[in-house]
Amino acid sequence: MKRDLIPPPVVWRLSLYLRELQALAGEGVEKISSRNLADGLQTTDTQVRKDLAYFGQFGRRGVGYSVAELIRRIRQILKTDKVRPVVVVGAGDLGRALLRHKGFLSKGFEIVSAFDISMTRVGTTAGDVPVRHLDELQGFLRQFDIRLAVLAVPPQAAQDVCNRLCELGIQGILNFAPISISAPAGVTVRQVDLTAELEQLSFHVATQ
Amino acid sequence: MKRDLIPPPVVWRLSLYLRELQALAGEGVEKISSRNLADGLQTTDTQVRKDLAYFGQFGRRGVGYSVAELIRRIRQILKTDKVRPVVVVGAGDLGRALLRHKGFLSKGFEIVSAFDISMTRVGTTAGDVPVRHLDELQGFLRQFDIRLAVLAVPPQAAQDVCNRLCELGIQGILNFAPISISAPAGVTVRQVDLTAELEQLSFHVATQ
Repeated sequence: MKRDLIPPPVVWRLSLYLRELQALAGEGVEKISSRNLADGLQTTDTQVRKDLAYFGQFGRRGVGYSVAELIRRIRQILKTDKVRPVVVVGAGDLGRALLRHKGFLSKGFEIVSAFDISMTRVGTTAGDVPVRHLDELQGFLRQFDIRLAVLAVPPQAAQDVCNRLCELGIQGILNFAPISISAPAGVTVRQVDLTAELEQLSFHVATQ
Repeated sequence: MKRDLIPPPVVWRLSLYLRELQALAGEGVEKISSRNLADGLQTTDTQVRKDLAYFGQFGRRGVGYSVAELIRRIRQILKTDKVRPVVVVGAGDLGRALLRHKGFLSKGFEIVSAFDISMTRVGTTAGDVPVRHLDELQGFLRQFDIRLAVLAVPPQAAQDVCNRLCELGIQGILNFAPISISAPAGVTVRQVDLTAELEQLSFHVATQ
């Protein structure tokens, strides 16, 4: 099945299953049923089986899944079974927090460099990741064949940087700038809008 | 209409509309049609009108919306028309980046304090926000009537801290820990999983 035809919620749940399986593996669990995997993830065993069925045959009836095997298969599907290099553009507070974040590497992502235009940031490192000048982006991306980028620039710069990234062969952009950006066909953009997340909570929570 | 019965995607789009309207207001735009508002947000004018209709009467046929008025009304709906205090639990790299983030206040959220257990963090500030010891959380929440919290603790601590927050009257939790947490009825939890976001991109992007 073509990847673009798989419903986005299915792919999203693969990440949820993977996170849960990784936690279970950390606790030494070796086998799991679809029902146990569904528990705590606000989903059902039917949903788990249906989601996995998009990608082939998993587990055995009545036996359940091998945790290690299912982790391996889901990582293949998500293409994180080999470490993928990622660049971060924008090395402000959020960008630097991402550089220092220890959790990405074990999940298959390595932030290899950050880029910025501020001379107080260029030349520094955060979490051992160097911050280079944005002018070096083109040479860097040409040299290392990187497909994934995180955008942590101010909103007014986001579309310009996005255009530049797409021209240089970036195919997936995680945008933290609080503004919608558009990218050409073939480039996937996801936005993380922290204010919008707080607003969703606020909507449901009584005022003081 | 009861808030819990309004479809979550409708509430999510309110945030998207608000972000777009705030950008337009910043550019000096005073009037906007539902079509223009829908453009760039990957939605349609029909959707915009349908979403807003959940909350009453907006704009006038053929005249469009007043940008300022629509911002005011959406903020009332999202309950961000008055500044809401927020606490951050966990003052590691991500927590500190949130404390330093300048964008929340103008959107109606003020991070008033962070809490941590690390003695190298307690007593410091980030972005002028003090980091207090987690032991002070109870007294602080009792004193200030705060309903919203951000969880930026390690995954193994997330559920415990969540339980504590719920006991102390927190009703909305934004969880950055890469683990599912459960909360009692009446508490809304939203999870931001940055690894899952990268995985969603990776799924669609060719490997090197």
